[in-house]
Amino acid sequence: MALKNKKSNFSEWYTEVIQKADLVDYGPVSGTMIIKPNGYSLWETTQKYFNKKIKKDGVQNAYFPMLIPERLLLKESKHIEGFAPEVAWVTQGGKSKLKERLAIRPTSETIIYDSYSKWIRSWKDLPLRYNQWANIVRWEFKHPTPFLRTREFLWQEGHSVFATKDEAESEVRKILKFYKDLFEKVYAVPVLVGRKSQKETFAGAEYTLSIEAVMPDGKAIQAATSHYLGQNFSKPFEISFIDQNMKKQFGYQTSWGFSTRSLGILVSVHGDDQGLVLPPKMAENKVVIIPIIFKKDKDKVMNVAQKIKSNLSKYNPILDDREGYSSGWKFNEWEIKGIPVRVEIGPRDVAKRQAVVVRRDTNEKKIVKLTKLDSEIQNMLKQIQNNLFNSAKARLTESIVNVSTLSELKKVVSNGKIARAYWCGSPKIEDEIKKKTGAKSITGEFVSSGKCIVNGRPATHRHYFARSY
Amino acid sequence: MALKNKKSNFSEWYTEVIQKADLVDYGPVSGTMIIKPNGYSLWETTQKYFNKKIKKDGVQNAYFPMLIPERLLLKESKHIEGFAPEVAWVTQGGKSKLKERLAIRPTSETIIYDSYSKWIRSWKDLPLRYNQWANIVRWEFKHPTPFLRTREFLWQEGHSVFATKDEAESEVRKILKFYKDLFEKVYAVPVLVGRKSQKETFAGAEYTLSIEAVMPDGKAIQAATSHYLGQNFSKPFEISFIDQNMKKQFGYQTSWGFSTRSLGILVSVHGDDQGLVLPPKMAENKVVIIPIIFKKDKDKVMNVAQKIKSNLSKYNPILDDREGYSSGWKFNEWEIKGIPVRVEIGPRDVAKRQAVVVRRDTNEKKIVKLTKLDSEIQNMLKQIQNNLFNSAKARLTESIVNVSTLSELKKVVSNGKIARAYWCGSPKIEDEIKKKTGAKSITGEFVSSGKCIVNGRPATHRHYFARSY
Repeated sequence: MALKNKKSNFSEWYTEVIQKADLVDYGPVSGTMIIKPNGYSLWETTQKYFNKKIKKDGVQNAYFPMLIPERLLLKESKHIEGFAPEVAWVTQGGKSKLKERLAIRPTSETIIYDSYSKWIRSWKDLPLRYNQWANIVRWEFKHPTPFLRTREFLWQEGHSVFATKDEAESEVRKILKFYKDLFEKVYAVPVLVGRKSQKETFAGAEYTLSIEAVMPDGKAIQAATSHYLGQNFSKPFEISFIDQNMKKQFGYQTSWGFSTRSLGILVSVHGDDQGLVLPPKMAENKVVIIPIIFKKDKDKVMNVAQKIKSNLSKYNPILDDREGYSSGWKFNEWEIKGIPVRVEIGPRDVAKRQAVVVRRDTNEKKIVKLTKLDSEIQNMLKQIQNNLFNSAKARLTESIVNVSTLSELKKVVSNGKIARAYWCGSPKIEDEIKKKTGAKSITGEFVSSGKCIVNGRPATHRHYFARSY
Repeated sequence: MALKNKKSNFSEWYTEVIQKADLVDYGPVSGTMIIKPNGYSLWETTQKYFNKKIKKDGVQNAYFPMLIPERLLLKESKHIEGFAPEVAWVTQGGKSKLKERLAIRPTSETIIYDSYSKWIRSWKDLPLRYNQWANIVRWEFKHPTPFLRTREFLWQEGHSVFATKDEAESEVRKILKFYKDLFEKVYAVPVLVGRKSQKETFAGAEYTLSIEAVMPDGKAIQAATSHYLGQNFSKPFEISFIDQNMKKQFGYQTSWGFSTRSLGILVSVHGDDQGLVLPPKMAENKVVIIPIIFKKDKDKVMNVAQKIKSNLSKYNPILDDREGYSSGWKFNEWEIKGIPVRVEIGPRDVAKRQAVVVRRDTNEKKIVKLTKLDSEIQNMLKQIQNNLFNSAKARLTESIVNVSTLSELKKVVSNGKIARAYWCGSPKIEDEIKKKTGAKSITGEFVSSGKCIVNGRPATHRHYFARSY
């Protein structure tokens, strides 16, 4: 029951694993997805972690309406230019045609800042830092893939206003660190960190910081972004305040978000030909217990299995006592679903007061005394979490190649790797690179040394280039 | 800074309190609301409680697409008839006109059951019990009020399929009990429980159980509903399974939901002329500590206030140490926001190792030794929770009047009370009652004794009648 080969056929493997692991299904409208309980629990775990992080830092959750009047969306010209091609429009309510058409939020800057302009009066109202968890619709026409690119998805979007540029810029960096921690410490997914090129900057932002992951097919994928908006929105939306010297000032703003796309990255980076591999911190059930039952020993084995279950309750274990399924079938099922640790217990194990413990990531088996089961599993879960990160990190590092010519870049990228190069930052040169190599600028450092690999001019960026999602 | 008088002017009082307590604001599209952090935290607390309850019972959370193709919505004829007048339609994606218009979910039976029909094959797949937390749009034209009636709102909707009628009906009752517990034990809001009349049954259901609250103006308001759908959807949607005898059967279904309307009920039932009154179980911050500071004693008082804060950390207390605001101003502010317990600490209290503790619900003051503060507050929070429920329960009980004629019913209802009456269950008679008294059937028992108060025929219902939201 092995899946498609991940290495040679990543995209088919992905399509198969997300369905067999019961994470997701296709919705009736093209490009939409149904997030099934196994997938949604990953999102709930993500929300729990991230909510804790931002709330501790003083951000508050709120909820803004989904429908945005067209006139609001038009207020910031670059913003509407960026999003107009993807907006789904509501034009009718019941039997009445609406007087003004309403956009389903493709992102919520405009509707949120319309309120911020009413709520903010004085420096005492600042900083204002709200976040919302919401559904988003972007009517894209590119090839849809569940989690990775869908017309409706779930995300969080944070929107802050500060009295000063410094505070706002420092939040932009702080949130990027939160995202990096979520991906690296919880998802065990290493990321590239940096600032987007001008072309790839969020529509309406001064600049965009991002974290980017690398998929098994060598393509890069944007994982989360943190935007410094400066006063680009506060001016047209009139988000102003009276400062301590009684002067009117415009606020400095940030916005930042990541979406259910992150779950697609999680699946892609760790999965293998047996199915999903969940880092322990993301697994709702960290352990599955499988009693190996033969008729005459049934009660004895089940008794011990029950005891193991209750002793391991902090790992929220599943005890798979279904009858009519072979042990091999069950092993397979829970491997596909990515449960980090499997505990097998049969009549001989019961006699010897032991169990067989199997790691999902390495398939390593270990015979463990029942008295040591808890401590051994605790240890093993830590090792799995670390091993997943370290292996992914090694693959990522190995895939990055420094290049100093355009033809090198092309070669590296066509080998499914990431090229790192100095360039002058010009959007025209970026277009040229894209045209000649198929790679676009992903993210990276802004620098003041080195020379552009295309035209030899002084470099301002040292960026990663790759094919991308 | 007292608010409008709640008793004489409930609707203006409500509009004022939800804004002054910073729960909610108006969205730019008519009939929409912004749920601000103080309001959203009430929703998060509600979600946490309800998620725990249903997950423990085996229900799993999932997420289904928001956009429903028109052809799916048309599959159950009574359902579409009920919802068509309120559907918001998406007709355009980017610059393209859509081939088929898409409904923003007014409820998700049709899109969810389209998937269920694919997922369910065998009796082994049952029961299937999924829930989702989602936003809903109903383009109503009645007078909108934040929380109570808005064009977009948040809710949970549970959707189950069972192999037998018995199991499905038993779930319908079980979930109703969950709702009753949420309202009575957490919100401290007593409810009427019963079965809706035929006219008020959910579009497409066999019958609807409901809990209903009574607002301060004497109007009833539907708080949550639990529907027995029978096979009304499973047949048109082909939700069938092969039973243990290898025969094809159609599933028996339930759906059930409650929404952010519940927050409006919570506010209305407990609030007073000083503002919001939160039952302790719903208050994110159960205690506010206000240091009464004079210049020379500042450090001494602040030291003790800090210590109190850390000793009371399990109540997640706010320490209001803002300068430039008088104590009276602060008292007022936290009264409006409904914090259950206020702790005042001034220089004389410090000297005597005591604090003044004030209950939000009764305004009762108590001098408490610092060493007893924790146990006293624990006690007080319990008392507040109980007192809010008991007072509301007494008001509810007092407002119900048994009537035996139509003119009595009319009189009771026009006095802002709830009439309880036997009736024959006929929709025509219900229309007549509505026309003559302004009251509609709210919910109630199905009976097999008594006589209809209108036509003297054998009664089948003993229902509550009231004006309603």
